[in-house]
Amino acid sequence: MTGKGIGYPVAQLAHVELFTPKPEESLWFFRDFLGMEPVAQEGQSVYLRGYEDNYTYSLKLTERDKPGLGHVAWRTFSREALEECARRLKDTPYGLGWSDGDLGHGPSYRIRTPDGHPMELVWELEYYTAPDGQRSQLKSRPQKRPLRGIPVRRIDHVNLMCKDPVPNREFFMDQLGFLWRESKLGEGGVEVGAWLSVSAIVHEVAVMRDRLGLGNRLHHVAYWYGYPQHIFDVADTAPDYGITVETGPGKHGTTQAYFMYVFEPGGNRVELFGDNGYLIFDPDWKTIVWDVSNEVDLERSSIWFGGKLPESFYTYGTPHPEVPAWVQRRVS
Amino acid sequence: MTGKGIGYPVAQLAHVELFTPKPEESLWFFRDFLGMEPVAQEGQSVYLRGYEDNYTYSLKLTERDKPGLGHVAWRTFSREALEECARRLKDTPYGLGWSDGDLGHGPSYRIRTPDGHPMELVWELEYYTAPDGQRSQLKSRPQKRPLRGIPVRRIDHVNLMCKDPVPNREFFMDQLGFLWRESKLGEGGVEVGAWLSVSAIVHEVAVMRDRLGLGNRLHHVAYWYGYPQHIFDVADTAPDYGITVETGPGKHGTTQAYFMYVFEPGGNRVELFGDNGYLIFDPDWKTIVWDVSNEVDLERSSIWFGGKLPESFYTYGTPHPEVPAWVQRRVS
Amino acid sequence: MTGKGIGYPVAQLAHVELFTPKPEESLWFFRDFLGMEPVAQEGQSVYLRGYEDNYTYSLKLTERDKPGLGHVAWRTFSREALEECARRLKDTPYGLGWSDGDLGHGPSYRIRTPDGHPMELVWELEYYTAPDGQRSQLKSRPQKRPLRGIPVRRIDHVNLMCKDPVPNREFFMDQLGFLWRESKLGEGGVEVGAWLSVSAIVHEVAVMRDRLGLGNRLHHVAYWYGYPQHIFDVADTAPDYGITVETGPGKHGTTQAYFMYVFEPGGNRVELFGDNGYLIFDPDWKTIVWDVSNEVDLERSSIWFGGKLPESFYTYGTPHPEVPAWVQRRVS
Amino acid sequence: MTGKGIGYPVAQLAHVELFTPKPEESLWFFRDFLGMEPVAQEGQSVYLRGYEDNYTYSLKLTERDKPGLGHVAWRTFSREALEECARRLKDTPYGLGWSDGDLGHGPSYRIRTPDGHPMELVWELEYYTAPDGQRSQLKSRPQKRPLRGIPVRRIDHVNLMCKDPVPNREFFMDQLGFLWRESKLGEGGVEVGAWLSVSAIVHEVAVMRDRLGLGNRLHHVAYWYGYPQHIFDVADTAPDYGITVETGPGKHGTTQAYFMYVFEPGGNRVELFGDNGYLIFDPDWKTIVWDVSNEVDLERSSIWFGGKLPESFYTYGTPHPEVPAWVQRRVS
Repeated sequence: MTGKGIGYPVAQLAHVELFTPKPEESLWFFRDFLGMEPVAQEGQSVYLRGYEDNYTYSLKLTERDKPGLGHVAWRTFSREALEECARRLKDTPYGLGWSDGDLGHGPSYRIRTPDGHPMELVWELEYYTAPDGQRSQLKSRPQKRPLRGIPVRRIDHVNLMCKDPVPNREFFMDQLGFLWRESKLGEGGVEVGAWLSVSAIVHEVAVMRDRLGLGNRLHHVAYWYGYPQHIFDVADTAPDYGITVETGPGKHGTTQAYFMYVFEPGGNRVELFGDNGYLIFDPDWKTIVWDVSNEVDLERSSIWFGGKLPESFYTYGTPHPEVPAWVQRRVS
Repeated sequence: MTGKGIGYPVAQLAHVELFTPKPEESLWFFRDFLGMEPVAQEGQSVYLRGYEDNYTYSLKLTERDKPGLGHVAWRTFSREALEECARRLKDTPYGLGWSDGDLGHGPSYRIRTPDGHPMELVWELEYYTAPDGQRSQLKSRPQKRPLRGIPVRRIDHVNLMCKDPVPNREFFMDQLGFLWRESKLGEGGVEVGAWLSVSAIVHEVAVMRDRLGLGNRLHHVAYWYGYPQHIFDVADTAPDYGITVETGPGKHGTTQAYFMYVFEPGGNRVELFGDNGYLIFDPDWKTIVWDVSNEVDLERSSIWFGGKLPESFYTYGTPHPEVPAWVQRRVS
Repeated sequence: MTGKGIGYPVAQLAHVELFTPKPEESLWFFRDFLGMEPVAQEGQSVYLRGYEDNYTYSLKLTERDKPGLGHVAWRTFSREALEECARRLKDTPYGLGWSDGDLGHGPSYRIRTPDGHPMELVWELEYYTAPDGQRSQLKSRPQKRPLRGIPVRRIDHVNLMCKDPVPNREFFMDQLGFLWRESKLGEGGVEVGAWLSVSAIVHEVAVMRDRLGLGNRLHHVAYWYGYPQHIFDVADTAPDYGITVETGPGKHGTTQAYFMYVFEPGGNRVELFGDNGYLIFDPDWKTIVWDVSNEVDLERSSIWFGGKLPESFYTYGTPHPEVPAWVQRRVS
Repeated sequence: MTGKGIGYPVAQLAHVELFTPKPEESLWFFRDFLGMEPVAQEGQSVYLRGYEDNYTYSLKLTERDKPGLGHVAWRTFSREALEECARRLKDTPYGLGWSDGDLGHGPSYRIRTPDGHPMELVWELEYYTAPDGQRSQLKSRPQKRPLRGIPVRRIDHVNLMCKDPVPNREFFMDQLGFLWRESKLGEGGVEVGAWLSVSAIVHEVAVMRDRLGLGNRLHHVAYWYGYPQHIFDVADTAPDYGITVETGPGKHGTTQAYFMYVFEPGGNRVELFGDNGYLIFDPDWKTIVWDVSNEVDLERSSIWFGGKLPESFYTYGTPHPEVPAWVQRRVS
């Protein structure tokens, strides 16, 4: 075994940076509504964590004029895996060079997807140590569950909109060690989406076709609850706090996830993930293929329960040419 | 209306007053942990409400040297029902006279159970009007669901410990119009508990034998969630915030309730109620009788799932002769 | 007792008769998919019960050439209430005369709504006694929970489509003692729907405007689970068994119900009800009014979570002029 | 990377064989109560599967005079991994030689734990293909969800009782590539339990000290639901079908699992697993250590919510010297 089967060099999603033009409102959303803990503020950025995130933070929220993806950080399996990958990528268009690190982590190697999404690979990550009075007796929980909002447990995955999913999927597979778990084919067998993972969950990353043809955009970042009731709690609470629900709660065919999609006030789409969908242990997994040019697969892959995803699900990403009014709606 | 079939003169449980020797910690528990809204403070009392309580408040929390029951307030079906009941009780040991009312309600007629539990009957109750920015668009919800703690929806019922449940059950039935829904008989057919209601829920009040023989004590007040996950959320969060769980989550045979019992920091037992158990619509209901002198009924009536209620469930009430250390434990 | 406040003369929904042109498939749906127990077969009818229905059955399923409502049976508060109501109605267009009873119940007085929906009032109802080996130790449960399908617990309510809801609402209130819990007003303040109950639940009956203008049709009958997961289980299982989901799972603003609507193979719409919504204990309840001519109320009253009910929800009822293909779809 | 980090050579738990002295009753339990599908019968064995198990079966149920573990089958990462491991073990006491395979799989290499638990390593496994009419449109689900019992989704893990957990833990780590996720230390720092996995879940295997000192016994096999309500459904249904609940539903501190333990009629303990607990993505995981000689860890690691596991949890395993009456109880 040469170790590329499971996630070599990438072991896990470490954190995501989001840009927001409304930093205070976005902070309110993640801190007060989703119960995340702000752990630091530096420059134009606030760093936040879910109460079961292992490292210092999983979200860096940075003020910018437009919403979008700052970067995605992947932890490698080892220091050697990081260095070997950096060497391999440095003479390609995808290797962008080393950075000195950031709050809570050491040097990272900056890369980008073929589509242009900024990412970094990192090995050294600080574990979170809660301040006195905030430690949990539950040893797999780095801090107490907060008494604020409907608190998310940890970051789960990221979904990237691409001009063409294929080269991006191949990049994740060939360069970063991801396995291809599920696939959607559209008219003429054209690949319109891929779900990839380096662990038993169905995806730490998905790449989906950007119907606007722009590419290099963020579709969503997902946080995990593990219990479906909590996405119902979000749904029940969202309307009164002016949070726009795009769709859900529901269950995807792809990944079997109990999903819910909302927009944080800065305009980025956020998924709340209610269970684990299904897990993959098979070391010889055959990629699941949905042929969404036929009606049954189309309907079932999107929402297993029946129903359709709204048009915006296929066209809206951040940054968006013009942010629609319905994304920003605050009912107060 | 002279209808005694359903709850004449009493229509519903309006609020409960609890005494606490630790007013700040108790306030923390109800406000920050159970997400209740403090609506007023007067003298030694704070008034709080669940976000789906209809009237101004459902809990009056009053500082005293010992925990226990301040009083239980029942709303009557009408002004006439209140006045007629007052006339009927005034020459009995149970009628204690009129009071001028309190925050959020008009004149009440003070009564007591045969065991001595202080109660009042009231007709005029103010509906809650949330301040600007706190109103819900969900018209059956008087305020937004709070983003604090694991918020309870409304008050559900109260459970009273009695020297002998029989006269107290009869008082609720004969004088207040309660219907006898479930019953537990112990050795020799002795009645050890009764569950009574004036509506489709199995009980707004229960009377249970006080094994210490003291009587006139509070067993618990119950708040309602409606979704079982939320009592699991309480259970998951309680240990890290120093809240003692007496027992649960579990499911009672009696009432079919998904229950959980904790002690608020002042020492009073509080039940969190996860669903509705079952509802009773039959106008000719035959009281369900559990013979808890036989082993099967004993086991099943307490915890349908199996398991036993702890000894404290039968002996601890407030005020308690000496508050056990385990009730007060704060793990920090 | 002359009490008209709560449900005089009607105390509860006893059972519903549904017509089906596909008796075997409909029986499969209720027995094998919803886990109901067939207790008898007589003529063209099968009688079924949920495992927490109190009386012999709650559903009479009768073969007919078209789907639709056979009748709705209401239990009165007493024999006297039944007789008094029969006397009161006999010289009106709504009183149709006595019948000799049916399986599991004594004489009933047949009535109809102003719109024409057949109903009956009954006092004598037999309690269900499970055969040996089928009795539950849970004394509020008349039979064991079946190990078949996703078993419903009991009948909950019925929803009737009317040419004009107003006279039908008034009939339920004035003649049968229902209380008006929620209301929807459309353009020009025209009443388009009303939710009425004789107990703490928000409705045992709803009357809604039939957009096709036909009237005297069934919108749906609802069965109750009490736990939201079970409607997700239905949703998860339905596609593979060829059961058409019209909409849901979701949460209504009106009634706060966790709902899901499916079509049984005979064409009748069936709601599966996941929780209890909210309960009403206030004896002086002010009818909640949704002005669905304004956009916020329209959106929120239908689906609190966001989203819209499909057009069919307003136009499809049984019998239907022509049953659409999507109702009958069996994917198998 | 030499590929031992994640599960080399073992990739996943494939199936478990259980012995039962009551084959018909055990079959009833797995097929009718837990909704598993019998796929074949051969000799004294029936093969069953959960509806989301990938391979032909996950349980081989074999008649024997005593309950206990037939064997545990682990799938390796590849054919080479299997062969290399066989070569490595063949001159140790743990390598027992090749077998020709069994229903649904090719040749396996038979091994045993230091304690003696029979296991096998296998690469070739047939995927399950449902018969016509039983296929699901949900492509990650190999068959329709059954309409029978409270159907489990897939096998999750196995827990082995050992004279001394240490050499057995080391065997799983050193020879089979398992990672050490959680640990319990008793008096004097003695290791009393270890939880190990080859994937993101906390354990596919646990080894726990056998307090009777017998060793080479089965503690339990676990099946997975993913939704906590379903273990409540099991709990709600078990008493009436004569199934003994040992403990739960509850939540372990170790693994964070929503657990429930019952005994199948043959006497083997079966865990029903309600969620996923937490998942581990950290490639450099530091084993969590509970010091169960101190009271807080003891209490919290067993049941995070509070409460204690019964004594039988530590002493009962299969085969058991004498099966206690409470394991066999059928209330019927």
